Amino acid sequence: MIEVKEALEIVAANSSVLSTQKISVQKALGYVLAETIYSPISMPPFRQSAMDGYAFIHSRRHQFDVVGISQAGDHANVKLKENQAVRIFTGAYVPNDADTVVMQEHVMVNGDSILIAKMPEPFANVRNKGEQISAEDVVFDANTLITPAAIGFLACLGITEITVYKKPKVAILVTGNELVKPGKKLSKGKIYESNSVMLQAALQTIGINKVKVHTVKDSLKATKKALQPILKKNDIVLISGGISVGDYDFVKEALLKNGVEELFYKINQKPGKPMFFGSKKDTLVFALPGNPASSLTNFYIYVYPAVKNKMGFSNTHLPKIVRKLENDIVNDTGKTLFLKALYNETSVTILEGQASSMLNSFAIANGLVIVPHDTESITKGTSVTILPID
Amino acid sequence: MIEVKEALEIVAANSSVLSTQKISVQKALGYVLAETIYSPISMPPFRQSAMDGYAFIHSRRHQFDVVGISQAGDHANVKLKENQAVRIFTGAYVPNDADTVVMQEHVMVNGDSILIAKMPEPFANVRNKGEQISAEDVVFDANTLITPAAIGFLACLGITEITVYKKPKVAILVTGNELVKPGKKLSKGKIYESNSVMLQAALQTIGINKVKVHTVKDSLKATKKALQPILKKNDIVLISGGISVGDYDFVKEALLKNGVEELFYKINQKPGKPMFFGSKKDTLVFALPGNPASSLTNFYIYVYPAVKNKMGFSNTHLPKIVRKLENDIVNDTGKTLFLKALYNETSVTILEGQASSMLNSFAIANGLVIVPHDTESITKGTSVTILPID
Repeated sequence: MIEVKEALEIVAANSSVLSTQKISVQKALGYVLAETIYSPISMPPFRQSAMDGYAFIHSRRHQFDVVGISQAGDHANVKLKENQAVRIFTGAYVPNDADTVVMQEHVMVNGDSILIAKMPEPFANVRNKGEQISAEDVVFDANTLITPAAIGFLACLGITEITVYKKPKVAILVTGNELVKPGKKLSKGKIYESNSVMLQAALQTIGINKVKVHTVKDSLKATKKALQPILKKNDIVLISGGISVGDYDFVKEALLKNGVEELFYKINQKPGKPMFFGSKKDTLVFALPGNPASSLTNFYIYVYPAVKNKMGFSNTHLPKIVRKLENDIVNDTGKTLFLKALYNETSVTILEGQASSMLNSFAIANGLVIVPHDTESITKGTSVTILPID
Repeated sequence: MIEVKEALEIVAANSSVLSTQKISVQKALGYVLAETIYSPISMPPFRQSAMDGYAFIHSRRHQFDVVGISQAGDHANVKLKENQAVRIFTGAYVPNDADTVVMQEHVMVNGDSILIAKMPEPFANVRNKGEQISAEDVVFDANTLITPAAIGFLACLGITEITVYKKPKVAILVTGNELVKPGKKLSKGKIYESNSVMLQAALQTIGINKVKVHTVKDSLKATKKALQPILKKNDIVLISGGISVGDYDFVKEALLKNGVEELFYKINQKPGKPMFFGSKKDTLVFALPGNPASSLTNFYIYVYPAVKNKMGFSNTHLPKIVRKLENDIVNDTGKTLFLKALYNETSVTILEGQASSMLNSFAIANGLVIVPHDTESITKGTSVTILPID
């Protein structure tokens, strides 16, 4: 049995980043860049007006004849004399001769001529070519996370394809003779299998949308056989159940017989103690406890950062926030506790129903409060660390 | 022109929740419940062992003969006498006669009999029927957000279908003769169209995955015609560009001619001032500024809560966090500022490149710092409010 901190270090040390793939910018949300991107163009690609108004050559003059027009999308390079101006719109090409744009609100129009009532500074309201970025300059360094704004910036430079780290292929293997598929009749002694849909949904929150679910009977032979192809085809294998110490828990043995190396088994925490973590080549195996709340807790604490590591993220863990505690906490277990809790802008309340079999409190919780194994009590009003799960 | 606060109120007042639909629990992540859910079964459905160990009738006795076994999934209702015990596993059916389970770590086994070394309290390690929830009890009230844990809880009760509020149908209409599709050659005076992929990605972050993008030329007639079917088929219409004061910005006129009621036009903020918000029946229209950074800012401030309102969310806005400022801020505009910023666990730094045309800073920002219109300066070290966008 190891402490949470050590378990996290072992997971991180074994979660190497995946290989790369080319992907269209349009589909790249949530991926991490695997290359440095250089700009193919300058942005803006030409001198642009930042305002609707008039472009002219700055001088002491206030009165101008309007001799042309430059709309967005045009390339009207009107020749200008000192007493001439061009009607211009936001984003439009500023004629080569012009150096300044006055906004239309500061101009009085009289037929084909204008009088500038409030003279702007020289070069005002003109966006220079390459003001945002010059051709060949770095757009993004490798390891940048692709956000909506990043997609917008890449697209505005005309970039349509980028190289990113792949998302891991994840499979779930469900064990347990007691399990019945929701929708079917529940005979005596059986319960509904809920961990696979729960874990699929949890994976979906971090962008893993296609997950194959396998089920297997509680027998060493069946589990061993089922694991073989699953270990070959996937980067991360989540196994639900069959990993506590009962005589009918075959998962660990089946894993070892399939050449999976044990990296740790059991963590000094509550819930979620009976977890096995191992690897076979680059494939990671998390044998999660069968109890739903334990399973989901360990997903957030261990699987979540492993997925993010594989995808090349720099921040791989759930962010930590701090709030003032509304209840007293007693920890007489000597274990690290992950307590289902509801936090708001200022404080956090520990919910009732912390048993590892109970999902009710998890379903209304928006965070997990961490109580270190060597902390025996925390009094109301103390600041505690929360992992937000909403 | 109105203030940000008023604009937010108008958007909220006009974003009524959509109608409902039945959906499979498996696909319900991120939806909001539109019904109260009652449990069809008790959970656990029978008295369950919480441990691997032995079930027995609690008395002063310490020695027992093991007369049977109860595995998870079984329904072995072994008859027990006072001196008899049953080998039992976590989650398995506790025989009707037994009242207590002792964990195997506290037992010495000698052939077919056991000696309990550390006697548990009466009724220990037995999960009572309905301990988590009783049949007919409320599982979730209406308006509960469906999280991974909620999906798990519904599935473990055998529930396969629920009624939720629909997601809005969203379309994007892109205007601007200056725009060229990324991947094509950029002729003089043109720029790449990036707002549609950026807004699609932003919508994806809140679960709106299918968005139709339409493009139209800068003419009143074309815009008017294009809008007609789009307004009919969608719950939310985002229009990109064509809404500032230039002579070639036809969007507002085209909207009014299509029977869209103006709810506000222009907000006292920077970036993002030239925005039109209107409605036609229950369809909302956001005519967003063409400048990418303005467009994305207004997405987060106005479109985001409207989508969440339509879907029945209680918390519709981006959460607000507070950090200490690393720079001084001067606001001589009299407008509410939304500044691209990078925050960490303790502080926040305002980024360079705040111009409304610039996406670079947005692409590396993880938050928007709000500077109220009536705040003229904020000094370094002051706590400021941030909208996290990561």
